[in-house]
Order: sequence, then structure tokens, then C-alpha cells
Amino acid sequence: MARPVIALLTDFGTRDHYAGTMKAVILGICPEATLVDITHDIPAHDVLTAALELAASCKYFPSGAVFLVVVDPGVGSSRRGIAVDTGDYRFVAPDNGVLTAALKETPARRAVELTERRYARATVSRTFEGRDRFAPAAAWLAKGVDLSALGRSAGAIQQLAIPVPQVNDDVLVGEVLRVDRFGNLVTNIDRKLFDKFTHANGIEISAATYRIGRVVGTYAEAAANEVCALFGSTDHLEIAVNAGSASDYLKLSRGAPVTIRRK
Amino acid sequence: MARPVIALLTDFGTRDHYAGTMKAVILGICPEATLVDITHDIPAHDVLTAALELAASCKYFPSGAVFLVVVDPGVGSSRRGIAVDTGDYRFVAPDNGVLTAALKETPARRAVELTERRYARATVSRTFEGRDRFAPAAAWLAKGVDLSALGRSAGAIQQLAIPVPQVNDDVLVGEVLRVDRFGNLVTNIDRKLFDKFTHANGIEISAATYRIGRVVGTYAEAAANEVCALFGSTDHLEIAVNAGSASDYLKLSRGAPVTIRRK
Amino acid sequence: MARPVIALLTDFGTRDHYAGTMKAVILGICPEATLVDITHDIPAHDVLTAALELAASCKYFPSGAVFLVVVDPGVGSSRRGIAVDTGDYRFVAPDNGVLTAALKETPARRAVELTERRYARATVSRTFEGRDRFAPAAAWLAKGVDLSALGRSAGAIQQLAIPVPQVNDDVLVGEVLRVDRFGNLVTNIDRKLFDKFTHANGIEISAATYRIGRVVGTYAEAAANEVCALFGSTDHLEIAVNAGSASDYLKLSRGAPVTIRRK
Repeated sequence: MARPVIALLTDFGTRDHYAGTMKAVILGICPEATLVDITHDIPAHDVLTAALELAASCKYFPSGAVFLVVVDPGVGSSRRGIAVDTGDYRFVAPDNGVLTAALKETPARRAVELTERRYARATVSRTFEGRDRFAPAAAWLAKGVDLSALGRSAGAIQQLAIPVPQVNDDVLVGEVLRVDRFGNLVTNIDRKLFDKFTHANGIEISAATYRIGRVVGTYAEAAANEVCALFGSTDHLEIAVNAGSASDYLKLSRGAPVTIRRK
Repeated sequence: MARPVIALLTDFGTRDHYAGTMKAVILGICPEATLVDITHDIPAHDVLTAALELAASCKYFPSGAVFLVVVDPGVGSSRRGIAVDTGDYRFVAPDNGVLTAALKETPARRAVELTERRYARATVSRTFEGRDRFAPAAAWLAKGVDLSALGRSAGAIQQLAIPVPQVNDDVLVGEVLRVDRFGNLVTNIDRKLFDKFTHANGIEISAATYRIGRVVGTYAEAAANEVCALFGSTDHLEIAVNAGSASDYLKLSRGAPVTIRRK
Repeated sequence: MARPVIALLTDFGTRDHYAGTMKAVILGICPEATLVDITHDIPAHDVLTAALELAASCKYFPSGAVFLVVVDPGVGSSRRGIAVDTGDYRFVAPDNGVLTAALKETPARRAVELTERRYARATVSRTFEGRDRFAPAAAWLAKGVDLSALGRSAGAIQQLAIPVPQVNDDVLVGEVLRVDRFGNLVTNIDRKLFDKFTHANGIEISAATYRIGRVVGTYAEAAANEVCALFGSTDHLEIAVNAGSASDYLKLSRGAPVTIRRK
């Protein structure tokens, strides 16, 4: 049997021991797990970025993977811990909406609240439930424990408001949802919406007040330092600079409006 | 049999190949090892931070784990390399005190000096013993080689001076020992000492000159941007700001005094 | 049989999901793989740094390892994807010279172009071939597929110009090729060249205009904050400051000249 995969996504950073300690707890329960870091460098407490990174990555994992998602500004409060089963995947996370984008693509079949104490550590720190409650739950799922054993049915889970583009006549207004390491400005405008909106007379694209010259197929099609638009690896429109950082060049970051006008 | 776990903690950072190269060496000797990064982002040469991160993390690892700890400002000098067995765990490190805090919780049963050349690489670089001496030693231990095979008894090993709180009558003076990614200021005042010191008339807590309003149970109990105190995941008092960075807000970092006065 | 090792080296950083997503793809094809990060923090698009980091690390991996190297400013363009077999190792990378330094030490025996569609994902993004073409190719190689199945013979592959030291009479001029996390300035002057060049009357070493006092055996031989020269872990001359950063202290970085004069 293939070894179970547990993928981790947190805002713990990598300079503290926190992510390593969660892995320690996992391996004590499920030593055969293969651990994969999606990232630990989500900006602190940034549930929206976490939700988007998870959705961009999770569908590439093999069926059966367990996702341990801990971006948890409400740690220790009354917000619940949950585990969700989509058939292909299981997710363990605080119930703060961080699964919203991932579950849009593969809807939840079952969700439970992490109430069963025997699948948490004996003592649960009120400031580090990742270690004491979420990591054990993920490990037990990977080990073969059924979701329903972890606690009672969760009922409705929190939804996160993810900004969607607005269309008014001949103007589509989207926005930058994330800026990646290369400075690419990734918007919430996906190819399907884009194709539906554009028409034969052509369009104009602007990032804030900056007029984008053209849509290219890949970075290298643009001239050096040319600002261009293209569809990135998640099939969303992004603003990029060939061999440079669009974010630095245009001084734009998350939330910046990206507008498409039909001519 | 469970696959052996080797946990790594260094100040190598992750932008150079150093940590990866140590893992390469390990897998050449012990291909069945499961490798876990505690962190590689200890500030360069900062033995105290390394000691504290190791102690905070190591006890969560499954019994049998081997810890490869390389924060080694004295690399290539006459300082020794050592391996230590605590019964539950084995540690491989330079003999510079970096194990002090970890061994306080689970005392050493045996310690050897890494003198046996056959368990090092054929050529040992004077600037990268992590690769040529420590990584092989950790891998051989994980592979099942007995500690005593690695070299002669080490005798007494180096101890690191770790700052401890001072109590004078009605004043307890501790200090910030580490600042985590979230900007939380973690002190050397643990819950046991705190409970013993406080009394019915109440206390006042200050971080440097800043008066802390109250002790809460978890971050989310504080108002947004409120500076508060709480016991973190290692049961030490920390100064925190809900949804913010206490370190940025108070402009305090390691070494800052944290004072408790009995009323 | 030992589990196959796949080592990753990219400029993807670790704050985005990109490296994790490549691992997801790999584990879907070859779940038994052991994944090792060499680094993901190569400066964006910096093929030369990637080439040098790879060469410094790869020879420490066990025979049979597969290297997945994605620093790919030309992603989606007509530049080819290739797989190379050296007998000991296999490499998967864009054909942009990033393998040049590694292949100097262990020459290629066979190289193919990644043309066989069945070993890529069904849809190949023009901005993320790492995920859709390179990661699958590396995983299939680790799984046991023969290199020749991945595509037609590649013929000559791209070579990268790696700066080499120049010798004129009694002056040898090298340069800083990389600066590591500790601020050490690693040059392109290796010990063999150095030994051949130096003679009985002694030498003078300068980093840019700064005169280096002496060559030591290891960092700790220098006084605190002394600027010195030594041979680092890849046997290249480096300029270092004991317990400090030579790069910060001398304000030098990649490309800075390092000169040796015979007296």
C-alpha cells in the first residue's frame, strides 16, 4: 500500500520550531506518513491567502492525501476545529473559512467537529492547537481512522468571502488576489470569464492606472521588462514583467484593481 | 519496524545547499530515514536560540529519534563533536552547549566524542563538519550503530548559561529569550515559577517600561491590538498582541526585561 | 530496494505553493520517492547560482538520485526540456545551461529532449512546466522508466559560461561567484589552482581593494571580526569574517574581483 501523504500549509514560518514540532507529533502517530510542505510562509493570520494557496495546490496531490491547514488567528477561542472529507481528500483545519476555495472545486461530503478527545494530545495548549489537536487529527486520519470517529457532525462550516470580479456593461473589474515570489500579480479573473467577456473588437486591460500592452502566452514572449498580461498556472489572468517583478515595477499588491474594457 | 526519524536543526538557512547536502549524506548511509526539519533559520552562530528551539521541540518526537544539531561557530577548531544518548533520544552536535536546555528535561545517560574515523566521511572539511562528521554520525545511529562505536566517552560536556529569572522580595525579573515569527516575546518565566510567585493581592507585569494590562488565556481573548501576557505553547509567559506583533509594537527583542511586581 | 531519491533545486521560493505542488505531482506518480530540497531560494531567474549550488551538492547524493532542477526564465518558450543520465545520476531541467557545472564533474552519458507526451501531465501550462513536464519526468525516472523513453536524443545541450580566473604573470584574478548565508564570499579560485600559483616568496590576497591578512584553516582560527581567506567546503578560496559577514563588512557581493599577487 502506498504510504499516506500529509500536506502541511501554515503561517508558522520556518524560523521557529512550530512546523517541525507538528511533524514530530504526526510521526509519533503515523510513522509511515510522507510529509509535504505546501508552504509555511503564509503571511501571519492571512486566512484568505492560505485559502487560495491551498486551492491552487491541493488538486495536484494523489487521492487519499490529508491536508493539515493551520492559519488560525482565533486559536484557543471558541472557533471550532474541523475535519472535512471530499471523497478524494481529507482536510483538518480551524473552522474559519480557510477551506472555502479548496472545497469549491471538490465539495465536502462530510464534515466533523474535532471533539473526540482521544484523537488529540492529552493536554491541549490554548495557543498551539496545531500541535495538540490538528496534527494528531491529521495523523489519525492518515493512519486509517474514519472521519466520523473524530467528533460529531459539524453542520455548516464557515465560508470566506473571496472577492469576485464585477461586470458592468463593457467593463470588468477584478482585483489582484496574490503576489507571488516572482512579483507576478495574480488576479481573480479566470480564463473562462475572460473568454466570455472579450469580443471581436478587442479589449483594454489596466492594472490600477497602468495600461497593459498585450496578453501573451508566457513570460518569455514579452520583451525584457515589458509589462504584460497572461494566464498563469492556475488559469487566472496575471500581470507580469518578463525577467522582472510586476509588483515592484508597478508598485501594486493585493487588492489592486485590474480592469478590462471592451472597445 | 518504524523508519528511523532524524530531525535537523541548524543555522544554515535554506538559500544555500548546506542542509540539503547533509540530507544527501544521511540518505547515502541510511536511505530508510525519515528526515524532519525543525528549523534551519537559527540566526547565524546563535547557540542559545538553537538550544531553546531544540528543547521546545524535541520532546514531541517519537522515541528513538536522532537529532542532528549544527550551530557551530567553532567549526574546525578544537571544540569536540559529540553524540549523546538519553534513552529516548540520541543527539549529535558540536560540544558547545547547544544541547544544554534539551538535556535538562531528559538527562544524558551516555555521551561520546566523535573520534571514530570510520563513521565520518573519508575527508573532513574544516569548514563543514556538519556534512562530513555530524551527518554521518547521525545516520549511523539511525541505522542502528551503537553510540559507543562512535568514539570514546566524552566525559563532561559543555554547558550553556541560560538566563534565569531573579526574585527579590516582591519583584521577579525575567527576560525575553526568543521572539517568534508572530512577534510574540517569549520569556524565561515559566508557569510554575509564576504561580509560586503571584499571590492573592495581585501583580503588575511590565515589559521593559511598558505596563501589561492583563494575563489572558489565549491571543483571541485580547482586544485587537491589545498588548497582553499569556502562557504560550511551552508554558512560558509571553507578551503578545492579538492579531499583531508585540515585538514591533513595543520595539523589544531578546534580552528585554520582563518584570512582575507583587502588589 | 532503497527508496528512490529525488532532489529538488528551484528559484520558486517557499512562500508560494509551487515547490509543494511539484512534490504533489511526483508523489502521484512515484509515491515511494524520498524528496530532498537542495534549495528553492535561488534568486529568481539566476541560472548561474543554480548551476553552482547544484554542482556543490549533487555529488553527495547516493547513486541513483534524480535531480529536478527548475530555474527557468524561458519557461513556455521554445527552449527545450531535457533529461540527462551520468551513470550515477539523472537530471531533469530546462536546457538553459543550469547543468553545466554539475556535468563538469560527472559528464553526461546520454541526454534526451522531453518530447514524449505520455510522461508529462495531460495539459502543460506555459508558465509552470515544472509542475506539468519536469516533475512528472523526474518521477517517472525515479519509478524506473528508462531515460530513452522520455524523448528523442537531445544532441548538444546548452553550456553556461562560468567565469574562470585569469592568470597574468604574477597576478591571478578570480571573482566572487556566490555569497552564502553567513556572508562568506566564495570565489572561483580552487585549491589546485591556488597551490600551483603560489610560490615560496609568498602572496598577497585582495578582495576588491581590501587587503586580506592571511589564509587560515577554518573560521575560528581568525580573531573575532578578522577578515581572512580560507578554503571552504567545496575547496574554493573564500573570504570570510570570523563570527561575522564578510559580505556586509566589505560591502562586496557576486562578481567582486579577488586578486592574488605573487611577491
